[in-house]
Amino acid sequence: MEKLLYGAAYYDEYMPYERLEKDMEMIRAAGMNVIRIAESTWASEEPQNGVFDFTHVERALAAAQKAGISVIVGTPTYAIPPWLAAEHPEILAVTPRGQGKYGPRQNMDITAPAYLFHAERVIRRLMECVQKYPNVIGFQLDNETKHYGTCGKNVQKRFVAWLKERFGTVEKMNEAFGFNYWSNRVDCWENVPDVTGTINGSFAAAFAEFQRSLVDDFLAWQAGIVREYARGDQFITHNFDFEWRGYSFGVQPDVNHKSASRCLTLAGCDIYHPTQDHLTGKEIAFGGAVARSLKRDNYIVLETEAQGHVNWTPYDGQLRLQAFSHIASGACGVMYWHWHSIHNSFETYWKGLLSHDLQPNAPYREACTVGADLARLSPKLAGMKKKNRAAMLVSNEALTALDQFRLPERGVGYNDVVRWLFDALYEMNVGCDILFPTDTADFADYDVLFVPALYTAPRELLERLKEYALGGGTLVATFKTAFSDENLKVYPEVQPAVLAPCFGAVYDEFTKPENVRLKSDVLALPENDREARVWMELLRPEGAKVLAAYDHKFWGKYAAVTENACGEGRAVYIGTMTSPACLKAILRPILEEAGLWGAEQTAKLHIESGVGRSGKNLRFYLNYSGDDAEQTYLHGDGTELIGGGKVKRGETLRLAPWGFAVIEED
Amino acid sequence: MEKLLYGAAYYDEYMPYERLEKDMEMIRAAGMNVIRIAESTWASEEPQNGVFDFTHVERALAAAQKAGISVIVGTPTYAIPPWLAAEHPEILAVTPRGQGKYGPRQNMDITAPAYLFHAERVIRRLMECVQKYPNVIGFQLDNETKHYGTCGKNVQKRFVAWLKERFGTVEKMNEAFGFNYWSNRVDCWENVPDVTGTINGSFAAAFAEFQRSLVDDFLAWQAGIVREYARGDQFITHNFDFEWRGYSFGVQPDVNHKSASRCLTLAGCDIYHPTQDHLTGKEIAFGGAVARSLKRDNYIVLETEAQGHVNWTPYDGQLRLQAFSHIASGACGVMYWHWHSIHNSFETYWKGLLSHDLQPNAPYREACTVGADLARLSPKLAGMKKKNRAAMLVSNEALTALDQFRLPERGVGYNDVVRWLFDALYEMNVGCDILFPTDTADFADYDVLFVPALYTAPRELLERLKEYALGGGTLVATFKTAFSDENLKVYPEVQPAVLAPCFGAVYDEFTKPENVRLKSDVLALPENDREARVWMELLRPEGAKVLAAYDHKFWGKYAAVTENACGEGRAVYIGTMTSPACLKAILRPILEEAGLWGAEQTAKLHIESGVGRSGKNLRFYLNYSGDDAEQTYLHGDGTELIGGGKVKRGETLRLAPWGFAVIEED
Amino acid sequence: MEKLLYGAAYYDEYMPYERLEKDMEMIRAAGMNVIRIAESTWASEEPQNGVFDFTHVERALAAAQKAGISVIVGTPTYAIPPWLAAEHPEILAVTPRGQGKYGPRQNMDITAPAYLFHAERVIRRLMECVQKYPNVIGFQLDNETKHYGTCGKNVQKRFVAWLKERFGTVEKMNEAFGFNYWSNRVDCWENVPDVTGTINGSFAAAFAEFQRSLVDDFLAWQAGIVREYARGDQFITHNFDFEWRGYSFGVQPDVNHKSASRCLTLAGCDIYHPTQDHLTGKEIAFGGAVARSLKRDNYIVLETEAQGHVNWTPYDGQLRLQAFSHIASGACGVMYWHWHSIHNSFETYWKGLLSHDLQPNAPYREACTVGADLARLSPKLAGMKKKNRAAMLVSNEALTALDQFRLPERGVGYNDVVRWLFDALYEMNVGCDILFPTDTADFADYDVLFVPALYTAPRELLERLKEYALGGGTLVATFKTAFSDENLKVYPEVQPAVLAPCFGAVYDEFTKPENVRLKSDVLALPENDREARVWMELLRPEGAKVLAAYDHKFWGKYAAVTENACGEGRAVYIGTMTSPACLKAILRPILEEAGLWGAEQTAKLHIESGVGRSGKNLRFYLNYSGDDAEQTYLHGDGTELIGGGKVKRGETLRLAPWGFAVIEED
Repeated sequence: MEKLLYGAAYYDEYMPYERLEKDMEMIRAAGMNVIRIAESTWASEEPQNGVFDFTHVERALAAAQKAGISVIVGTPTYAIPPWLAAEHPEILAVTPRGQGKYGPRQNMDITAPAYLFHAERVIRRLMECVQKYPNVIGFQLDNETKHYGTCGKNVQKRFVAWLKERFGTVEKMNEAFGFNYWSNRVDCWENVPDVTGTINGSFAAAFAEFQRSLVDDFLAWQAGIVREYARGDQFITHNFDFEWRGYSFGVQPDVNHKSASRCLTLAGCDIYHPTQDHLTGKEIAFGGAVARSLKRDNYIVLETEAQGHVNWTPYDGQLRLQAFSHIASGACGVMYWHWHSIHNSFETYWKGLLSHDLQPNAPYREACTVGADLARLSPKLAGMKKKNRAAMLVSNEALTALDQFRLPERGVGYNDVVRWLFDALYEMNVGCDILFPTDTADFADYDVLFVPALYTAPRELLERLKEYALGGGTLVATFKTAFSDENLKVYPEVQPAVLAPCFGAVYDEFTKPENVRLKSDVLALPENDREARVWMELLRPEGAKVLAAYDHKFWGKYAAVTENACGEGRAVYIGTMTSPACLKAILRPILEEAGLWGAEQTAKLHIESGVGRSGKNLRFYLNYSGDDAEQTYLHGDGTELIGGGKVKRGETLRLAPWGFAVIEED
Repeated sequence: MEKLLYGAAYYDEYMPYERLEKDMEMIRAAGMNVIRIAESTWASEEPQNGVFDFTHVERALAAAQKAGISVIVGTPTYAIPPWLAAEHPEILAVTPRGQGKYGPRQNMDITAPAYLFHAERVIRRLMECVQKYPNVIGFQLDNETKHYGTCGKNVQKRFVAWLKERFGTVEKMNEAFGFNYWSNRVDCWENVPDVTGTINGSFAAAFAEFQRSLVDDFLAWQAGIVREYARGDQFITHNFDFEWRGYSFGVQPDVNHKSASRCLTLAGCDIYHPTQDHLTGKEIAFGGAVARSLKRDNYIVLETEAQGHVNWTPYDGQLRLQAFSHIASGACGVMYWHWHSIHNSFETYWKGLLSHDLQPNAPYREACTVGADLARLSPKLAGMKKKNRAAMLVSNEALTALDQFRLPERGVGYNDVVRWLFDALYEMNVGCDILFPTDTADFADYDVLFVPALYTAPRELLERLKEYALGGGTLVATFKTAFSDENLKVYPEVQPAVLAPCFGAVYDEFTKPENVRLKSDVLALPENDREARVWMELLRPEGAKVLAAYDHKFWGKYAAVTENACGEGRAVYIGTMTSPACLKAILRPILEEAGLWGAEQTAKLHIESGVGRSGKNLRFYLNYSGDDAEQTYLHGDGTELIGGGKVKRGETLRLAPWGFAVIEED
Repeated sequence: MEKLLYGAAYYDEYMPYERLEKDMEMIRAAGMNVIRIAESTWASEEPQNGVFDFTHVERALAAAQKAGISVIVGTPTYAIPPWLAAEHPEILAVTPRGQGKYGPRQNMDITAPAYLFHAERVIRRLMECVQKYPNVIGFQLDNETKHYGTCGKNVQKRFVAWLKERFGTVEKMNEAFGFNYWSNRVDCWENVPDVTGTINGSFAAAFAEFQRSLVDDFLAWQAGIVREYARGDQFITHNFDFEWRGYSFGVQPDVNHKSASRCLTLAGCDIYHPTQDHLTGKEIAFGGAVARSLKRDNYIVLETEAQGHVNWTPYDGQLRLQAFSHIASGACGVMYWHWHSIHNSFETYWKGLLSHDLQPNAPYREACTVGADLARLSPKLAGMKKKNRAAMLVSNEALTALDQFRLPERGVGYNDVVRWLFDALYEMNVGCDILFPTDTADFADYDVLFVPALYTAPRELLERLKEYALGGGTLVATFKTAFSDENLKVYPEVQPAVLAPCFGAVYDEFTKPENVRLKSDVLALPENDREARVWMELLRPEGAKVLAAYDHKFWGKYAAVTENACGEGRAVYIGTMTSPACLKAILRPILEEAGLWGAEQTAKLHIESGVGRSGKNLRFYLNYSGDDAEQTYLHGDGTELIGGGKVKRGETLRLAPWGFAVIEED
């Protein structure tokens, strides 16, 4: 992308009265340069079966063209028209709750032939229609695609075929899944029971993996169609979303982002996050790190909140801070969902940049300043690359596994462990990339590799982790790592399997901590904040140094955190969950030893860095607080790009509430 | 009604042994003069299809006649016999949870032809049977009728016909409901999707309105049948109930009481409320105000608790206080549900006046004193009229709208806003009538009109509210008023729509308050009790005086409560929810200015007033507390009717715990 | 049983690799002498319809035989193979949630002919196979059998037949169930509605009773088959389980243990309980008391936890303490579920004695000491009998009744009342047996009879209780006793029905206490811990002495606890629930007067007693705490069996955390 993109989703279809010219003028006036159109509007594009009407699409394209605004065209397939559901009710996905009803989006079986037939036809017609508009810069396939829990009889049939492919014989499957247990042993492929009733975690996890593969197939299929029409300069992207906890929280359970993104030329995602007093920037950084990892390049934030939810109405300054934080994480564009607030239906209170009165308002006025700044700074910020020395290995399979074999505290799952680590690093200004299990070739690019709760891993992956440490890396793994094989069969050997020699520690017992704290001779743990939480493994050191042990009458003889020299590297094992402060106390000496510790790590502000196209370092000092802040500038002398002044190392930066500075080093 | 009615529901059908003569004697001895019979006993009246047996009904009528007791006969149709469900299972209503099973009451599709056929037959037979009994004073149609969520295919068909009638074309419906959103656009009436799956709040709200119309139709149909048989002196009533939160809380969501009561000659309702330490009289006043509004006349309390729930067992004195509070609100009769406690089934622990041992007990002995007092005072109290200067506009449509677009705090809905206002007025002894949106002609009867959260209103209704203020009234509206049109489409204009000039204030942003308080230069807000709650609109005054603003670092520039001169009148807008104490501080100056403030408003006791048939004022001083109370008598000299003594203005009334005084002014 | 049994469930079928010889050697080395095999492994035994393969069973039998280990063989019927569900989907039970899916255990309709046919065939083949192994000492029928909520159309048909048998005519049923209420009156057997929709508690409770009878029938049927093959020295047992609240809490709602155990020759059960800081021994004592009562003899603990749940990982010493506590309660054997931790599926985290690495670990090492001690002490401890002077009457029917007519506090049911009493007695070291309603002939064996919340009882049973008191017993009943007849029809007479003269107290009103405490002139109630809880009956003494009254402004005139002389005996009525401490203060004088009070009752340790085969008293002093304990030895001089030393009365016993002493009196 030559320049930074800034814009919003735009729905001419939803407007209560004729606004198009007026809106394009307001968009342009705000310094915005792109809109996204057409996704989810199938019923407007094909109001009756086979009757197409792209009036809204073409109107929007023409008006944008006239106003000098680029357009991303979305295929409309993630919401089907009533006539399609009426003609082909089998399209509505059967899930464990039964067959869905028409009404919501994302209610279809993405494998249903009738759906695929009609989806392909409307996509081709749309592509034909938009080909002639030069301002179309790219395409978005569908939207937030997932498998929607589809598990009807047809899906079960395909799943059995997938199992057959994987295992060859029922005997091998029986053994891999431990089907002798509770008489689940299967005698032939025909009698494989409906997976939705199973109590076998291995079987259920295999199905989850199969379901994720349906998303890969679906997006690849759409990409193939779109590619037939797209010009070479037009990108193909998708709007990936994250585990949703009322906001974008963690790794998406239902999609393997890494494999699903293979068919794309530009990674895209949406990031929604708490705001007002709860705005921290963490979701922006985490979502950005995942998106950045998909193509190992810049990515586009296709959706983020302008006003959004009623409890996200932004304070003055927050919209600006958010936009520059996305850029600081490596985004090549930031787009609001959506331009205007909708007057009917489900998302009336998911407000856009404009309120329902469609007049310029406080958020719009702030967006105008963002637009102006981004336009001006695009030559310096566009194409900025991140260079992180730490990475974190995340795994959809481990996430599913911890869904099947839950941590013994309600509501605490895989992503809580991921975010516990990621957030601690964020708070210490340690930039962290994301790796997936298929990224083993990239392990060596990093000095420190964090491995949260990698419950399930084939022996080969564990060997790669071992080699990483032996080769000089610092491997930091948490509880629940290396416990089971790729079929969720617990390794019937000393735990952590394969890696025990690496960590120099073993365990066979574990429990839920109750009134257990950590104690340490070597770490400066926070005195009143060192309880063991959620899970504790009773570690027995076999060569490792004990960084922390349990402080408890009966468990006091066991280690909680160990560190071991391992070939050229080191391996740290964290056997329990802790408070964020306690985790940071554990991580600090590890980071120090790995050479990732400096003044930046204890700064009051959040700091992000990157390297611009010109090769110059870019520093973002972000004040994620409602108070004025002062912070010593810690990097090389340079120019503050927003205000335009010169900044010298050691100088004091003064930032307003939710303010920030962007310094380009000389 | 010539005299006050006092009695209970009586079920000869449920008695464990022959009790009829004995019971009538005990009822008479208690000073009771009416029983209600027959509702819900269809299976006893028609034990087999077409085999009728009115033995229990006739026995009860004859025994009551002999004891000088009047009878209200209920049609038995709200609980169907097993044989009817067995022969016509389609009668069991299909709801969003699927088709109901036989067992509970109120499980039928009130539009099912088989149900209507059999219901009509049993009603006609019953009416023929009871015609000859002179002590039948009136009829109750069905009981607590609602639509029971019926939404099967047949109901959907009728709903589509109703939509067709309302909109004429699908295009108009698409526009009104915003069906372009998420591809919900409909191409023809045949393809209108099953409403139970919808995510479109406009569509869902229309269905709720349609369902309420089914209740209107059903009751009007029953009234037509009953009227064929009823004598001119016999009333036709119905037992309306309220939103149920374990007790009668607020406006009934599933019935439009105003339109449903058109077919009646006497309004009736049941009122259940907390008791013991939680007895406040508020539900008696609120339910009474609604019932009083239906025919703008006296009403009958067809059911209220004697012992009721296990946590409602009354303290000494409470039954008396309750009975006179109903009268003070304008009731012409008070009846317990029910005479005896039932020995089997679902309501074994919803105890009657008698306990399971069927012997005289503490509540019965207290009822005897009530009966004696009411009989003696009937000439003075019967037909008493209320004259209130304040009214509140309530709306089923707004209630449904806030169900679709919920306030962002779990469990807080429309009725919480209604009761927040109503209860504050109750605590300030400001008598308040209820108005419905169709009562626009009556607005002018009141000095102050309260409008809680009127989320949805056609433009015409908003114009009437404007005229009310322009014409000299004091209009007091809360947040969420005038936000959407009658189809729940948000008005795409400045909010509050239509009324913004009237209030002299506008807003386009809102949020959920978090650590936000109110501050005021002109109101005496309670120092430690002035947090903004649930919802806050960021008001920008355009001419209005700011009564209160938000006390918050970032929201402090916005107003929370505004007051504006508007033609001959005034308009107050309350943009957030508050504590009860804070609300009272807001309302006080408004009431003062409107001339509704006096000594009564700060009295420790609850006071109700009315005008007897003779034209004399009646004053009820009610001690809703478990402590002895002293209260200066604030009204005109008169006679205390319970004790019989003379009372002079300024004298001190001394009341026992849960005690009361009734004064007839000279 | 000649000797104490100690062992574990063993599943060769679940092993991840060949372990059999190694495991048998480890089992033997731990001093264990028995394994349980084969239950739940149907799919391994009959991998295809009619193809049998008992390899695992025979391997295990042979290896055990070789190692000198006895075997209990379980019939495999509580988990069906996939092929059976695939061929006969009707086997999957229909419950109120619809038809189950294949996957879990215990998902079948235990009345389904196809299930019974296949179950019988596999049982017969298994019995034929294992006949030749001399080390089979007994058989377990199925496992934790219940009715699994089965309520399909076929079950409903049988239920109606059962009702017909019980009532003869629909008229009698209508009357017994109060079916006139809400028009539920039935006109013929054909129209009895599906019970799953009912709101009639009598009807629902009858169905629960019918469902329990299905379990009786099923086990008796299996016993008949097994008996055809079993040798005379082989026992037939069943693994009963208890109401499950994450552990074995109380009386099993879905099985009448007393009637279901008639077909057995040895009572068996599983007992799971909290551990770590929450280990109290109460569940061991309660489950033991129930199991002991079934055949009025010793019983076997077929399953208990080794490591179990993640929050049950035992502290050092706890496994030993638990094992000896089971013996102290009268168990003839203790078996862990299960030997090894399973590597796949649902119970991966219900760990066995060995962890997943299958190596000797801390629990295994502790089990070795238990095995050695039990082997050595078997001659003294095996066959020990308990002689208790107090008993408690428990009732499945009362439990069901309080499910239908719940106490007004969420989560508090019949078993909470049972355990409230039982646990208080346990804490006071008062040994307590369990009686069922059919055990009226045994009432006279006890000095004190506790009757918790016997909500439903036929008049005859109440008469037997009356006779018990009249004959000299001390009858202690709680609230909710004697309220309804056997059809849950409330007795339409003074309460407590039949027993009111016995208690010398009556009531007709009750409520949920709110800010109500107890006050007493005669009891030393704990000052700050005497609130009335959950339920309070407003007792009016008619001859009884008031032990405690309510401390409350309006309820103060009513009694809470009364005591009455009754013939030769006494009758105490406790009208409300209290804290444990308050209950103990109430019970103490009653126990004193009954002669059940001594030094033991205030000891700090838990003490159990029994009489060995030699006639000598055995005393178990059990330190249920994580602290060292000192306790005066209160019984006759004797020998401490674990350490081997002599102990004299009055001497101080010193026990380690979770330690214990076993003394055989001289």
